[in-house]
Amino acid sequence: MEIQIAVAKVNKYATSESGDTLEVVERPNGGLSVVLADGQTSGRGAKAVSQMVVRKVIGLLAEGVRDGAAARAASDALFTDKQGKVISTLNIASLDLQSRTIVLTRNNPAPMFICRGERIDCLAEESIPLGTSRNVRPLITEFAIDVGLIIVIYTDGLTHAGKRRGTPMDVEEAIRSVLEDQDPGPQALADSLLAHAVRLDEDRPADDISVLVLKVSSRLGDNVRRMSVRLPIDGYSRE
Amino acid sequence: MEIQIAVAKVNKYATSESGDTLEVVERPNGGLSVVLADGQTSGRGAKAVSQMVVRKVIGLLAEGVRDGAAARAASDALFTDKQGKVISTLNIASLDLQSRTIVLTRNNPAPMFICRGERIDCLAEESIPLGTSRNVRPLITEFAIDVGLIIVIYTDGLTHAGKRRGTPMDVEEAIRSVLEDQDPGPQALADSLLAHAVRLDEDRPADDISVLVLKVSSRLGDNVRRMSVRLPIDGYSRE
Repeated sequence: MEIQIAVAKVNKYATSESGDTLEVVERPNGGLSVVLADGQTSGRGAKAVSQMVVRKVIGLLAEGVRDGAAARAASDALFTDKQGKVISTLNIASLDLQSRTIVLTRNNPAPMFICRGERIDCLAEESIPLGTSRNVRPLITEFAIDVGLIIVIYTDGLTHAGKRRGTPMDVEEAIRSVLEDQDPGPQALADSLLAHAVRLDEDRPADDISVLVLKVSSRLGDNVRRMSVRLPIDGYSRE
Repeated sequence: MEIQIAVAKVNKYATSESGDTLEVVERPNGGLSVVLADGQTSGRGAKAVSQMVVRKVIGLLAEGVRDGAAARAASDALFTDKQGKVISTLNIASLDLQSRTIVLTRNNPAPMFICRGERIDCLAEESIPLGTSRNVRPLITEFAIDVGLIIVIYTDGLTHAGKRRGTPMDVEEAIRSVLEDQDPGPQALADSLLAHAVRLDEDRPADDISVLVLKVSSRLGDNVRRMSVRLPIDGYSRE
């Protein structure tokens, strides 16, 4: 088998800094975790909050702390620091090669989607961001790593897209239409969802948007681990 | 402009864990850093060492500590922990968007290459791994972010490839031949160098090998940040 992870990320229109932070960390017992946080408001303040949350979670995961405990610790640290005045969403997607499971941790009102073949499950149980109170409980979903699984996680910029214009995005429908058309790679799916949202916002995203797609495939190629990052560095406008 | 980063990584033959650790972190003042460490020996012990070094460096960079100071701190921590008995190489490649420079930090006998057009510079000044003594000095090279720059960094598995069979790899020549043939993307260059080394080891790498390529291009596409990761998860053998 092989796991592919793809991320597509864009800033709110005319801001140079995204309030969303995403990082990947290797798990000490094998596998890796992707950690995504969206700090309240936008710009520099939001960035500082989401970076603090991601840093806390990643530091704990690297020490072998379990995902749920890491989320709770980040929430307590944020609440202690900001006394409930600043909150942050958090999603963790982990490939745990010890248990051979995928572990999804969510403190985010925005749902997640799990796709297997034709079936698309929406995980939309009520979930509260970090830092809102003491004892914030993360929602945890764990299942075996299986060929064909596709997981879609995103920050609320995706669901807010088009709302101001009365044409909100139907994320499930957008996922379904991409999956029906073809057998898309994870980057194509992430790019397509992000592009859809940006179009609904008429090319001026009303919020930072991050889309994370994880796909389990039967292995076709070699045994090489690969990572690639693309970072445009001149602000929003095209050159 | 846009920055593209590509990594290709393979384990020593018949080991499930690489002694090389590579992670990417966002810099608090804009930009990002790629941190690569190779812990002494191979397997689980080496992994723990390289993870400790990368974790230490990343934690400090995230707090805004400068690259050289982060490398020194990681070296002191490793020396204090292991009293010089265990060492680790370290490379940091940073895009500092505040100074608009690339900062390369090296504590690694293996050289780095900086390519601009036809010209390939080899940075091979003597450099000592972390943890060998107190006051290990990192070598730091800083220059403006310029379109056309290609930087190649790797762990010593690449230079060791083929040595046992008396056919060591000429890395500079290998880079030159890929660059002359075409205008390769960074992933194609990293993949090609890694594949060359694995062939010299007759498909059984004698050591963990990691290749990191960083390329600065004029921007062709949109303003979306992208990341993709591919992780084969069934050990070395092909299915």
